[in-house]
Amino acid sequence: MEERPFLYVCPTCSTEQEPGGVTRGTLEVVIEELPSAWPEAPATSPAFLTSFLPVGDPRHLPPLAVGGTPLMEVPRLRKELGMGALWLKDDSRNPSGSTKDRASLLVTAKATEWGVDTLATASTGNAATALAALAAATGLRAVVFVPATAPPAKLVQMLSYGATVLPVAGTYDDAFELSLAACARFSWLNRNTAYNPFTIEGKKTAALEIIAAMAPELPDAVVIPAGDGVITAGLAKGFADLERSGLIAHRPRLVVVQPEGSAAIATALRDGSPGVTPVPDAASVADSLVVAAPRNATLCLRDVRASGGSGVIVTDASILAAIPRLARLTGIFAEPAAAAALAGLETAIAEGLVAHDERVVLMITGTGLKDIASARRGIHMPDPIEPDLDSVETALARSCDEV
Amino acid sequence: MEERPFLYVCPTCSTEQEPGGVTRGTLEVVIEELPSAWPEAPATSPAFLTSFLPVGDPRHLPPLAVGGTPLMEVPRLRKELGMGALWLKDDSRNPSGSTKDRASLLVTAKATEWGVDTLATASTGNAATALAALAAATGLRAVVFVPATAPPAKLVQMLSYGATVLPVAGTYDDAFELSLAACARFSWLNRNTAYNPFTIEGKKTAALEIIAAMAPELPDAVVIPAGDGVITAGLAKGFADLERSGLIAHRPRLVVVQPEGSAAIATALRDGSPGVTPVPDAASVADSLVVAAPRNATLCLRDVRASGGSGVIVTDASILAAIPRLARLTGIFAEPAAAAALAGLETAIAEGLVAHDERVVLMITGTGLKDIASARRGIHMPDPIEPDLDSVETALARSCDEV
Repeated sequence: MEERPFLYVCPTCSTEQEPGGVTRGTLEVVIEELPSAWPEAPATSPAFLTSFLPVGDPRHLPPLAVGGTPLMEVPRLRKELGMGALWLKDDSRNPSGSTKDRASLLVTAKATEWGVDTLATASTGNAATALAALAAATGLRAVVFVPATAPPAKLVQMLSYGATVLPVAGTYDDAFELSLAACARFSWLNRNTAYNPFTIEGKKTAALEIIAAMAPELPDAVVIPAGDGVITAGLAKGFADLERSGLIAHRPRLVVVQPEGSAAIATALRDGSPGVTPVPDAASVADSLVVAAPRNATLCLRDVRASGGSGVIVTDASILAAIPRLARLTGIFAEPAAAAALAGLETAIAEGLVAHDERVVLMITGTGLKDIASARRGIHMPDPIEPDLDSVETALARSCDEV
Repeated sequence: MEERPFLYVCPTCSTEQEPGGVTRGTLEVVIEELPSAWPEAPATSPAFLTSFLPVGDPRHLPPLAVGGTPLMEVPRLRKELGMGALWLKDDSRNPSGSTKDRASLLVTAKATEWGVDTLATASTGNAATALAALAAATGLRAVVFVPATAPPAKLVQMLSYGATVLPVAGTYDDAFELSLAACARFSWLNRNTAYNPFTIEGKKTAALEIIAAMAPELPDAVVIPAGDGVITAGLAKGFADLERSGLIAHRPRLVVVQPEGSAAIATALRDGSPGVTPVPDAASVADSLVVAAPRNATLCLRDVRASGGSGVIVTDASILAAIPRLARLTGIFAEPAAAAALAGLETAIAEGLVAHDERVVLMITGTGLKDIASARRGIHMPDPIEPDLDSVETALARSCDEV
């Protein structure tokens, strides 16, 4: 296999490694000519995507419909929270069930453009699954490094897509370092989040869709669960591109939500620190948000601050409670990391970071079907009943007692 | 609670119960004035839905985006099967992860129109989950009767939506009868498939979307996994409405796929029997397709025969193998019942029921995340590795040996 040189990170900055392994020198993609008007074509169409993304030839796009997810009015949740202008961006409706498909779409398109046959990534689960799905649709090989503790649904899903899965006896951060070493050894294209700049660029399509759906109005704030901070940076990049193109007058505030056991970015935002302090023993029920050293801390802190946004920290208990609360008020079943957006919104309101009369969008980043074991902790599983009406009446009386 | 009279089944025919409990007298909804041209609005919009469905006031539609799922070209699967014109209708992209959301959308809209506060249903799992999601978004109560053996993901999901779940120690057919009795006792609106005529009517939107996406071409055949036969009847109703409206010149052939352990409809189609023979000990890995007495056998047999279609029977082994086969060739991860469509297509080709040069659509009815345990049976779960390059090399060599 021949060597394929690809510039992932800034050759100068990346040599200055921060304590704890925080990556420096993450690069940004600059699209020189952005559209000055919304394309007529729908957001999932090749015509729309190639006009905003660095994809020269639409035939390089994988044959799997990514994005174009609903921006939903949620009347019952609005009433419950006393917010008249709240929306959910339901990115759990992507093909592999998470917003990570947006990044994998672009990275896979670039692999096709460059004639690369193997893509590799480290992931807490969803990014690896997304890469496996997009690579399968395209006919490329995916090699994925995930913590062996990832929820079984994520492992089974990526294996079903045919990925070569390497469950790492270690943390996400161990998997991340190992994937870098393996890509260097085997000349694979690395899709690691915040390392390959096309991950941030791919995720910006969610911002484009939110703005296109709400135009001519703008959201005041977008609430985003964060691990490495790449979904946040992707949305920020989308809003920045739209501001540059003249399609929006200003950018919404970015409100970043992290679980208390893995809150490096939110803590830095709240403390006003210039950089993050890694959390070596990071842990949370929201597995997708667990990182010791957020890989995209630098750009994420810059973008959230530039937007006038803030960081919010939530407990695991509030995340678990938010899963059925969100499902019962909206009909959307979210994984813990995604339900954290609702827990974070309620915290942000309580802390005065978001006002009841603002226009707010919650990013729902992945489906609850990805992690049934965690969802089960938030509900009561009823006992089976015999198939007769008396048993029905007894069970109904019992369920009323429990409510 | 006052009595609410609602005509579910024909008062005359339904009294003539067939042996084994096959329901007779399923009613059909007739829309007197159908559109004679495609609405400008997208398929998920209230304007589109109210023009084809019996919903007078768009405000009665639940606030949850149902349908509008992708009709996908699948280049790698086309090449693998030697079929130049194959599409997948990916209905796993509905909000609760299955095509059943389409039926629940309409039944919930009717409940809102009529001022009903409680909806009940029996289900193998997906229909109950769909009802729970739509009822939650609307603010209605859902009471669901499911076999206690339903996959845990389906149970956890419907409980998260806040449904009152009654796991029945018995079969789907036991749950079905119990739900009828409970609705009669408590005056709930029953959403049972093939019993409430709006279930068939709601599912027809998948047919409308397929035709709208392919126009002016038509599919020659649509391959549909079947349990009770309601998805089949829903598609047939959609095609029939479009023929009546003049929007299509003829209807596609319906190819019905059933697992060998629950094949009452397919067997009747293959034998040329006027009716079905129930299978009291029905069983399959495709839990969504397991019914002893298909509730919609009469209309399903009529519709498949009128279309010039046929029945196909597949083994559980071929269904389990179809999950990773479909995922690896398309990037779509399907539950066993949905993957049965691919197994069925390959059988139909081998039997000469579908030709390689025909235009064919496969209905993918639910996501693989609904039943991880079954998907796991079709793949090999690798052992964890230590986070070092030597372990990566060893694992890669092992994975090559396995391939």
